[in-house]
Amino acid sequence: MTKMKEVISLAHGSGGKLTQELIKNFFLPSFNNPFLAPLTDSAVVEMNGVKFAFTTDSYVIKPLFFPGGDIGKLSVAGTINDLAVAGAKPVFITCGFIIEEGLPLAALKKIVSSIEQTARCAGVEVVAGDTKVVEKGSADGIFINTTGIGVIPPQINLKIASLKIGDYIIINGTVGDHSVAVLSSREELGFEESIESDCAPLYDLVKAIKPWWRFIKFMRDPTRGGIAGISNEIAQGQNFAIKIQEENVPLREETKALCELLGIDPLYLANEGKIIFFVEREKAEDILKALRIHALGKNANIIGEIVAEPVGKVYLETSIGTKRVLDMLIEDQLPRIC
Amino acid sequence: MTKMKEVISLAHGSGGKLTQELIKNFFLPSFNNPFLAPLTDSAVVEMNGVKFAFTTDSYVIKPLFFPGGDIGKLSVAGTINDLAVAGAKPVFITCGFIIEEGLPLAALKKIVSSIEQTARCAGVEVVAGDTKVVEKGSADGIFINTTGIGVIPPQINLKIASLKIGDYIIINGTVGDHSVAVLSSREELGFEESIESDCAPLYDLVKAIKPWWRFIKFMRDPTRGGIAGISNEIAQGQNFAIKIQEENVPLREETKALCELLGIDPLYLANEGKIIFFVEREKAEDILKALRIHALGKNANIIGEIVAEPVGKVYLETSIGTKRVLDMLIEDQLPRIC
Repeated sequence: MTKMKEVISLAHGSGGKLTQELIKNFFLPSFNNPFLAPLTDSAVVEMNGVKFAFTTDSYVIKPLFFPGGDIGKLSVAGTINDLAVAGAKPVFITCGFIIEEGLPLAALKKIVSSIEQTARCAGVEVVAGDTKVVEKGSADGIFINTTGIGVIPPQINLKIASLKIGDYIIINGTVGDHSVAVLSSREELGFEESIESDCAPLYDLVKAIKPWWRFIKFMRDPTRGGIAGISNEIAQGQNFAIKIQEENVPLREETKALCELLGIDPLYLANEGKIIFFVEREKAEDILKALRIHALGKNANIIGEIVAEPVGKVYLETSIGTKRVLDMLIEDQLPRIC
Repeated sequence: MTKMKEVISLAHGSGGKLTQELIKNFFLPSFNNPFLAPLTDSAVVEMNGVKFAFTTDSYVIKPLFFPGGDIGKLSVAGTINDLAVAGAKPVFITCGFIIEEGLPLAALKKIVSSIEQTARCAGVEVVAGDTKVVEKGSADGIFINTTGIGVIPPQINLKIASLKIGDYIIINGTVGDHSVAVLSSREELGFEESIESDCAPLYDLVKAIKPWWRFIKFMRDPTRGGIAGISNEIAQGQNFAIKIQEENVPLREETKALCELLGIDPLYLANEGKIIFFVEREKAEDILKALRIHALGKNANIIGEIVAEPVGKVYLETSIGTKRVLDMLIEDQLPRIC
C-alpha cells in the first residue's frame, strides 16, 4: 500500500504493479463509473443511441525521433490502436502539445507532418488542438496528448468476461520491435539501428478481418508492459489462466540477441504495432490466415490459449515443456518508451 | 514570418500573435478540415446524426495550487467551459497526466480530488485516463490534459458570421481574477492573496439562460489573452469592429491597483470563470437580468458592442470618450497562467 508521504517514482508510470496500485488507490476511488470501470484502453460510452469508444494517451517518448517513427506518428497510431482494440472505427482525434522553450521549429515541423500523414493514412481527422509552451527545463522537448473517438458497430461485443478455457491467443507479428528501436537510438547505448519500431495504426488490419469479428472475443494492444504485462492485466481476478507458448511468439533474431545481452525479457517489451486477439478456438486458423494476408499481419501467429490454471496468472511454456510464471513487473525495463 | 532555424519561445504559447502565427503556419496547413477551420475552442462534429462539441486543453499552470483552485479544478473547468461556449452540454471527459518523478503523492491526491469534485458538480463523467511519469527535471510537477465531449442541442447555432453591427457584448463578472490570484500566489511576488481565481465550470450558467439561447449569437471564454485577445480573434478578418466600454467592464479594485502597479492591462488578463456573450441588442437587458440571478453571473454587465469601424479591430472607449485600439499582444503578460 502506497503511503501518502511517498512521492511519485518512474515505476508509477511503467504500466506495471505500481501503475496499477496508483490507479486502484488514487484514480478509481475518485472516478468510479460504469464507463471507466472495465479498465480497458478505451471507455465505451453511449450518446444519443450511438456507441462510441473514447480514449486518451500522453506521449513522452525519448528520443523524439527513432528508427521507424517519431513522437508524432506514435501519438496518432497509439490512440488509433486503443480505439481499434475496442472494435471502434477511429473517426476524430485531438492533439494537445506541451512544448519546451527552445525546441527547434524544424523538429516541430517534422512531428506535425508525421501526425498529419499518420492521421491521413488512417482516415482520421485532427479536429481540435492546443499548444502550451513551458520554460526551458520544465519539459523535455515536446509532450503530446492525443484523444480519440471512434464509432463501435453493433456487431462488436468485446468483453474479458466472454473469455473461456480453450480460446486461442493470436498476435499479428514480432514482439519488442518498438522497444528495441527506441533503445538502439538512445545515444548512450550506441547499438546499431537494425530494427525499426513497429509503430503503425492498426485499424486497417482489424477492418481486414471483418468477416471474423463475431469470433473475436477480446483485443488489446501490448504497449507498456508488453504481452506479459497486458496478459497479466487480463488474467487478473479472472477464473482462468493465460498460457503463452514461447516457441510460437514471433521474435526477431536481433531482438533475441539484444535481450540476452541486456538480461531483459522480450515478452515485457513495448509494442506499438501489435494486437493480441483472443478468439474462438475453432476459428483461430481462419483468422490467422486472414491476418497473414495483410502487410501488418504477415508474421502473425497463435501464441497461446486460455487455460484453467493457475487461476488469474500468466505462464510461459518453453519448447522443452518447462513452465514459468510471467508476473507483472514492478519497475519499468525501459522508461519513456511511449 | 517565422523562420525554420528558429526555436519555440514562451510567446508561442501565449495565445497572442506568435501563437496565431504558429497555428497558421504549422498546424492549419497540415490539419485543414472543415471541423478545425473555424478556430473556435471546440470542434463541432457530427457522428451518426448527432452534433457534438469536442475539445482538448493541456494545463501547465504554475503554481499547481492557487487561491480559489488548483490545476485539477482548472483542468476540468477549462474544458467544460470550452464545450459550454460551443453551446454543448458537457458529458464526458478524459484526463491525461504527465507527472514529474518526485511529486508528493499527497499533492496528486489533492489534485485528483479536485478533478472529481469539479466533474461531479458539473455532472460530467471522467471516463478514461492515462498516466505517464518522467524523470525529475523533465517536467514541472504535473501537467494535465483534459479532452471533453458534449452534445449540442438542435436550437444552438453559434457563429461569428451571424454577428452584425449593433449586437451587444455581455460578460458575466469581473475580469482578471484568475491571473491576479495566480500572480499573487507566486512566491517571488509576495502579494497578499486577497483575490481568488474565478476558476469555475460555467455550463450551469449557460443552462440557466436557456430561454434566451436563440438570441445568443456567439460565446467565448476569455482565458489566455483576456477579453482583449479573444475579442481580437473574433474581430480579425470580419467586416466589423468590436467596441469595449471601459467603465462598463467589471473590475475589482484590487485588480485595478495591482495592474497599475505592474503596468499591465487587465483587459489582457486570463479568466477561468468568464464568458463573453454576443447577443441580439433587443434582448441584451433580459439576458443580463437572467445572468445576474445566477451566482456565477451576479456581476454581469454589458461591456461593449459590435460597431462598423475600424474593420477587423477592437478598441476601448474610455469614460471621457477617448479611443484606444486594443491590439493582440505578441508576448505573454504572464506565462503559465493555465
